Amino acid sequence: LLCVNHQSLIATKANRIVRAADGRKVFEFGSRRAQGANGAILGARAAYIGGCDGTACAITDKLYGVPAMGTMAHSWVQMFDTELEAFKTYCSVYPHSTVLLVDTYNVLKSGIPNAIRAFDEVLKPLGARPVAIRLDSGDITYLSKKARKMLDEAGYADCQITASNSLDESIIRDLIYQGAKIDSFGVGERLITSKSEPVFGGVYKLAALEKDGEMIPKMKISENVGKITNPGFKTLYRFFDKETHHIRADLIMLDGEPEPAGDSYEIFDPMAPWKRKTLTNFYVKNLRVQLFEKGKLVYDLPHIDKIRSYCALQISELWEEMLRFEKPQTYYVDLSQKLYDLKQQIISEHTK
Amino acid sequence: LLCVNHQSLIATKANRIVRAADGRKVFEFGSRRAQGANGAILGARAAYIGGCDGTACAITDKLYGVPAMGTMAHSWVQMFDTELEAFKTYCSVYPHSTVLLVDTYNVLKSGIPNAIRAFDEVLKPLGARPVAIRLDSGDITYLSKKARKMLDEAGYADCQITASNSLDESIIRDLIYQGAKIDSFGVGERLITSKSEPVFGGVYKLAALEKDGEMIPKMKISENVGKITNPGFKTLYRFFDKETHHIRADLIMLDGEPEPAGDSYEIFDPMAPWKRKTLTNFYVKNLRVQLFEKGKLVYDLPHIDKIRSYCALQISELWEEMLRFEKPQTYYVDLSQKLYDLKQQIISEHTK
Repeated sequence: LLCVNHQSLIATKANRIVRAADGRKVFEFGSRRAQGANGAILGARAAYIGGCDGTACAITDKLYGVPAMGTMAHSWVQMFDTELEAFKTYCSVYPHSTVLLVDTYNVLKSGIPNAIRAFDEVLKPLGARPVAIRLDSGDITYLSKKARKMLDEAGYADCQITASNSLDESIIRDLIYQGAKIDSFGVGERLITSKSEPVFGGVYKLAALEKDGEMIPKMKISENVGKITNPGFKTLYRFFDKETHHIRADLIMLDGEPEPAGDSYEIFDPMAPWKRKTLTNFYVKNLRVQLFEKGKLVYDLPHIDKIRSYCALQISELWEEMLRFEKPQTYYVDLSQKLYDLKQQIISEHTK
Repeated sequence: LLCVNHQSLIATKANRIVRAADGRKVFEFGSRRAQGANGAILGARAAYIGGCDGTACAITDKLYGVPAMGTMAHSWVQMFDTELEAFKTYCSVYPHSTVLLVDTYNVLKSGIPNAIRAFDEVLKPLGARPVAIRLDSGDITYLSKKARKMLDEAGYADCQITASNSLDESIIRDLIYQGAKIDSFGVGERLITSKSEPVFGGVYKLAALEKDGEMIPKMKISENVGKITNPGFKTLYRFFDKETHHIRADLIMLDGEPEPAGDSYEIFDPMAPWKRKTLTNFYVKNLRVQLFEKGKLVYDLPHIDKIRSYCALQISELWEEMLRFEKPQTYYVDLSQKLYDLKQQIISEHTK
């Protein structure tokens, strides 16, 4: 449950950030602020699944094949007598993957001029091109526009600008809206802890108990309506729109009920059963996948890139109303009439 | 840095919750919502250091000696044909540590009456007393008052009531303020993720570089004033009030500066150097402790209970104004004049 909750949380948050970046690359940078080592390592894996392009956590590359990348720390620059010396040394060590952090002292007065000098004096003679400069403080919109101009004028229009500094989906959207000249984002603490909502509330509850070959439905009842579970051994169908292939709704049924079919199919909101909707022009997919059989794993674990593209596919099947960051449209998960009736029956047995 | 940030975060959050509980016991219950396995395991250790009385994470007991405790899950109750049977079985398995979860179906109509019957029918003949019942949903204030009355009238005034359900320091304060009859709290997701503030922003930056036996001060400058570091090899003094033994201020000095002494000592706020204060009636402690020498650990790691009591001592030395949950008084960390001057000098060298 810890694994499912944690990694679903980070993949979800990462996906929001990646969508905000609107095609620009996003790198996971948050190890030092993660909640424990697996928070960093598996968090970076989840961030990649959610759509990030890589991570600064080298262990996640080693263990799970998530592309690792990074830039220098401020201490690299501070270690040298001058910023120029620091940059030139870095260029000579990593001539084909040079990303220079330009805000240790002053971005526009020393960082960028020194970066350009290091590119000219070290990379150019080697025939190498710089990858990027990184901005980590100050007004990113303003600095990125100025930096872009300085790099372009110096002949480094191909040198990208990457930004970091407590970013999240809302700051990234703002930066892009204001025309910041950012090619990629390094996102740290707010991604790796899912700061805006650090709890993913998945639970498992006993749903049924096999007794003499029969599945006995079991249920948790609660004063808090959201904590009442759905009883019995169930299966899950997803309705898709035949034309757009977007998701129309999910329907939980008891195992053995016939698959929804036909030209029209009525579903209803189990929290407000008078709200009924007739779906037409649909097809369904059964989403239930067996992972374990009598405690043994019977599922082939897919490659991480397959999980990542599955995640992207799932997002593409949602309506844009559901992808809103604030107050998204509700995703409806309905119950079959039979399951709904069973649930009501068990509730009434326990409340009489 | 990950270890320091994560565990300081959780210990801090735990301490807030423990203070809110005002003498009642607090147990860490959040493993399933933690961010990764170490988030759970080391988080539970940090929660204990912050003042919690135990954890439901058995691994933390095994590895670090934090007392593990727990109650049943809802699935235990659901597994049986009736709640009474579930309770009676639990009582017979754990007669001396019976904590019954009473909200699987209906707290007042079935949970508590069945608990009392199980106590009467299983524990009483064994001469055993129940430890507690646990409430996990519904209106905790109302239910705990009713439950207290029912237990008292049945002869179980010594049976404690424990509560859980997305608790934090503010909900716990509210429950106590309303007179909820709760003896202990099980706190899960909001503690183990530090939900109200899931990021602890510790950093380390290069402060000095040894060169030919001399410490060369190094500094990170930034447009964001809060990101500017204090240069040089430093030491830290804490001023205490001679009468109350409360903390008056912290003072960072350059290594080798004379220890603050005398009848009065002037300090100033480095963010507003015109704000000066003369301390009298004080004594100081030097807080610097060497942990590593040339990469080797030279510090004896204390026992966890020593760390826990050290934490409690630190809290007792703070003024209540600083312990406020919302808008606490600022904790002042000042710089010596010499360190302040060095900082200004390096800034002006880099900004001319």
